[in-house]
Amino acid sequence: MEFKYNLRELQFILKEWLPTEKVLAFDRFRDNFSLEDVDMYLNEGYRIAREVVNPINAVGDAEGSILKDGTVTPPTGFADVYKFLQENGWGSTSECVQLDGGMPLILYKALFEMNTAACPAITSYIKLTSGAANLLIKFGTDEDRQRYLPKMLSGDWQGTMCLTEPNAGSDVGDSTARSYPTDDPRIWKIKGTKMFITAGDAGTCENTIHMVLARPEGGAPGTAGLGLYIVPKYRVNEDGSMGAFNDVTIVGLEHKMGLKGHATSLLNFGENDDCYGIMMGPPPNEKGRSRGLAMMFNMMNESRIGTGHNSNTQAAAAYSYASRYATERIQGRTFGEKGGERVPIIKHEDIRRMLLDMKAVTEGVRAMIFKSFYYLDIEANSPDKEEAKRYGGLAAVLMPLVKGFGSESSLAAIAQAIQVLGGVGYTREYPVEQYLRDSKILTIWEGTTFIQANDLVGRKMRMNEGAVFADWMKTIKDFIDEHSDHPQFQAEMRRLGEGYNCVERVRERLAGWYEQFEQKKRLIPSNAVSAMTICAQVQVAQCLMEQAVIAQARIAELPEDHFDRPFYLGKVAAARYWANRVLPQTALATELLEAGDTICIDCPEEALIVD
Amino acid sequence: MEFKYNLRELQFILKEWLPTEKVLAFDRFRDNFSLEDVDMYLNEGYRIAREVVNPINAVGDAEGSILKDGTVTPPTGFADVYKFLQENGWGSTSECVQLDGGMPLILYKALFEMNTAACPAITSYIKLTSGAANLLIKFGTDEDRQRYLPKMLSGDWQGTMCLTEPNAGSDVGDSTARSYPTDDPRIWKIKGTKMFITAGDAGTCENTIHMVLARPEGGAPGTAGLGLYIVPKYRVNEDGSMGAFNDVTIVGLEHKMGLKGHATSLLNFGENDDCYGIMMGPPPNEKGRSRGLAMMFNMMNESRIGTGHNSNTQAAAAYSYASRYATERIQGRTFGEKGGERVPIIKHEDIRRMLLDMKAVTEGVRAMIFKSFYYLDIEANSPDKEEAKRYGGLAAVLMPLVKGFGSESSLAAIAQAIQVLGGVGYTREYPVEQYLRDSKILTIWEGTTFIQANDLVGRKMRMNEGAVFADWMKTIKDFIDEHSDHPQFQAEMRRLGEGYNCVERVRERLAGWYEQFEQKKRLIPSNAVSAMTICAQVQVAQCLMEQAVIAQARIAELPEDHFDRPFYLGKVAAARYWANRVLPQTALATELLEAGDTICIDCPEEALIVD
Repeated sequence: MEFKYNLRELQFILKEWLPTEKVLAFDRFRDNFSLEDVDMYLNEGYRIAREVVNPINAVGDAEGSILKDGTVTPPTGFADVYKFLQENGWGSTSECVQLDGGMPLILYKALFEMNTAACPAITSYIKLTSGAANLLIKFGTDEDRQRYLPKMLSGDWQGTMCLTEPNAGSDVGDSTARSYPTDDPRIWKIKGTKMFITAGDAGTCENTIHMVLARPEGGAPGTAGLGLYIVPKYRVNEDGSMGAFNDVTIVGLEHKMGLKGHATSLLNFGENDDCYGIMMGPPPNEKGRSRGLAMMFNMMNESRIGTGHNSNTQAAAAYSYASRYATERIQGRTFGEKGGERVPIIKHEDIRRMLLDMKAVTEGVRAMIFKSFYYLDIEANSPDKEEAKRYGGLAAVLMPLVKGFGSESSLAAIAQAIQVLGGVGYTREYPVEQYLRDSKILTIWEGTTFIQANDLVGRKMRMNEGAVFADWMKTIKDFIDEHSDHPQFQAEMRRLGEGYNCVERVRERLAGWYEQFEQKKRLIPSNAVSAMTICAQVQVAQCLMEQAVIAQARIAELPEDHFDRPFYLGKVAAARYWANRVLPQTALATELLEAGDTICIDCPEEALIVD
Repeated sequence: MEFKYNLRELQFILKEWLPTEKVLAFDRFRDNFSLEDVDMYLNEGYRIAREVVNPINAVGDAEGSILKDGTVTPPTGFADVYKFLQENGWGSTSECVQLDGGMPLILYKALFEMNTAACPAITSYIKLTSGAANLLIKFGTDEDRQRYLPKMLSGDWQGTMCLTEPNAGSDVGDSTARSYPTDDPRIWKIKGTKMFITAGDAGTCENTIHMVLARPEGGAPGTAGLGLYIVPKYRVNEDGSMGAFNDVTIVGLEHKMGLKGHATSLLNFGENDDCYGIMMGPPPNEKGRSRGLAMMFNMMNESRIGTGHNSNTQAAAAYSYASRYATERIQGRTFGEKGGERVPIIKHEDIRRMLLDMKAVTEGVRAMIFKSFYYLDIEANSPDKEEAKRYGGLAAVLMPLVKGFGSESSLAAIAQAIQVLGGVGYTREYPVEQYLRDSKILTIWEGTTFIQANDLVGRKMRMNEGAVFADWMKTIKDFIDEHSDHPQFQAEMRRLGEGYNCVERVRERLAGWYEQFEQKKRLIPSNAVSAMTICAQVQVAQCLMEQAVIAQARIAELPEDHFDRPFYLGKVAAARYWANRVLPQTALATELLEAGDTICIDCPEEALIVD
């Protein structure tokens, strides 16, 4: 079955729903992009996704990245497609927000989304290179930029982020990689092992530029002591040409459930005491503190939202396959009509229920994601510093919702897509089982679901004494106030109001627990994931309702037989489904949170262990 | 990490919770089994699972079954382990309920569970052979039994069930395989293609005995016209020796997401017009009706409950790995104590929440499953025909709950086990990702989740004018009435009472829709899965509470430092968790069901399709 993607939806997001013109009017974009160009970009991006990127998806899964005698061989086509995307402006050059010619995130991500849906394994390479390039742009010196950036952006080299170690995963502050000063204050000797490094040694490019966290000798313990280093696999000469091997060796590749096309590497830095890195940012201060993690986390909002986006886009692709399969597969008869004709399974009520559920969750989460990208575009480009700061705050609140709820809900949606396909969905004949395998890591990468939830309740709800979170809540409240008497959506708007009240109750309860921290602290992490889910479900509902209000207005204008009418009717149905069938869960979850039971904590530890 | 399993739990089920002595007192078992033997069987079964069966689990996944030049090569060890289990009484001889020496299901399934947890791919072969053998025992002639059974039971041969065809999956009535009479009234010529045949041609045994559904020439359309045939791969001579090839050819093996160790085959019967089958049961009657499907479905309760059991046992194994990993993995610090020591992750509240959730769902669903097996044991063995019939009815109600809810909830639990392990859970280093892949098919096999739900609302709720379902409800009501004033469980018993009321409301609402069938019929399949989930959550709650009441009594007797105390405290915690955190979902789900909205049905079909 052919790869297809929901181009109409992306058009709706950029041209009918988001105030894209506001973003395009910023100085950086004004001369390069206009609303009229959006269709051209989307159409061409869709063509690339189908014709260039998707053909390597199943190949990557079947062949995998292979390590033999210290050399990694990528799956057929991976090197070419990486180069093609980077070289032709579908990758890092368009993503890096501070480069001239960079695209607005909302546009770039719409294009990137199609490529991720077409082959999630390859776009991670782009994303990592963009991340490394962004660090160079923001924190490197002019010399660093001149030396490393051109070949990273051209697709000749690629980049990585090296945080995780065998004993430091979720808790990166326990990192044991070390750096030692040399005669040159910017050059440090690096020693350590890094694990789960995407593209760590992928065989796709002649050189890899690693961004490595390591603790300078005598540095402070914990995250505060970590420095950030540019560590190329092969050293780079002043003229940008490649020099000697920099003692970064690959020890192994992970054998993963999915994303087999891309290389997840275990790397040794300085095995032979001959690995050097260029320090980014200032040297450690007198207390041994460095700004390494702070710099690396500078792009965290975008990268975590990107991870949620990755999972959402795979779920959307799986939904597309399931929906088309449902129209082709003939099985069974209309319920209650024994003698009737056999029908395509989309006629069956339970199949429709599953499809509408997938539609609502994929479109609703996508809307929340693009709202976040929109906020990030304003933050990065608005000349009004107050406005930029405000939207940065809104994006910061959405980030854990997108990553935490987005990745979990997408996984459930993909499992449902397999269910719609039935037995063939469990086979390689259709790509849905691959999407399930490829996407499971996304609830773990870039901070587990709990880490997102903890970020929400521990940081985002409390930033600026709660003002940022209150501002986010206000975006929802304003929408409710504006549309509470919408003639078509009174029930749904009432449900949204109830959802909003749940967010308010959750916020209050959490604040109360923080006030009585010593007595109540264990309730906070016990209920964090639930709090995150409640906030996300309400935000998704508000996004879907925003879209439904627009769609309802279009429906009123269009003739009955207009080809585009079903699209808008679908928008309304998705919003109604979410508001009436999903959103009510928030009331129950809020009640359970407020109950504050301690069953999980009280259960003796030995009783939880099966050995 | 070593394979371990929850032996203590199986002991509790057989020796403390279920009235096992009632089953062992039946004529078939009285002289062969006693309660004192249970530990010996469990201990020895556990040893086999660990030492014999588990070693082939990862091997099977890595090597897969390979088809080359028409011959299937099984993974290393699969043929030996199949033979070992069958030959030594750990397989079909003990399972076949009407064989002398057969075990009670409750005992056999406790042993089988450990082998399934150790390697789900191999035990399907046992299960299929048991199913085919049971058909021969029940519906074959003495000659059939003498000819085929001994070598099937000894592990020299294996058996299959051939229902599915490329165009007839969920709707087996549309099967197009044909049978044609010959001069011998019991011998029919067979022609057709069968798909997704587990063990269809597995390379493990010298011969395979297929049980094939096919429509006799001129037979009635639909399921009523299907006959059932014994179709060996190689014909079997009167003396039981193997004869000529019977024209059953393998066309292909499926490339699956999981269960790669076992062969899922596409088979052609009679490609060269030389395939013959032995008809089971009576010939087609004057209306062209046969009893093929009825015979095949005779074992359906057991095989569908077995499928739910399969998924439950994989979830339980995944939970065991996750719980042990959580005690070994050191990461992070106690919440709210910044300067503290690093701790094993089981100290983190959210990890405990996930572990307790897995514990509650795996133990609760297992309890529902063993209750079902207990009912089936009584049905098969009680000399009191009324009692046998009554318990058969109770098992029939539980069947869709076990299969539908059991398989869906297990999948979610396994995804959570991966989450507890984090990044390594996504790799082959631990078997949890394999469990996710191996178990996803179980929501599809033996009837999809919707088919189970439809069986519940369309058949089980309505059997004998609702009397069977009412009898099942009474088992729950009686328990509530008996324990409503239990001093330790008043809140939980109240919750259970509310859950029971939800079942009652759902039953009434469904009955109302059936009464107004023409106007309301589409609401039935739209809400069937929800109805099934509600009933299952209440049944699981009642099972967990039954166990908690027993556990609470033990806790009162045991000294504070008794080694077994945590086991009982865990039972109580699991029941409290389920009653207080999961069961309340039934009230919301019931409300939504009663709302009877038609969003899924009203949404235009085109709006659900992404192409």
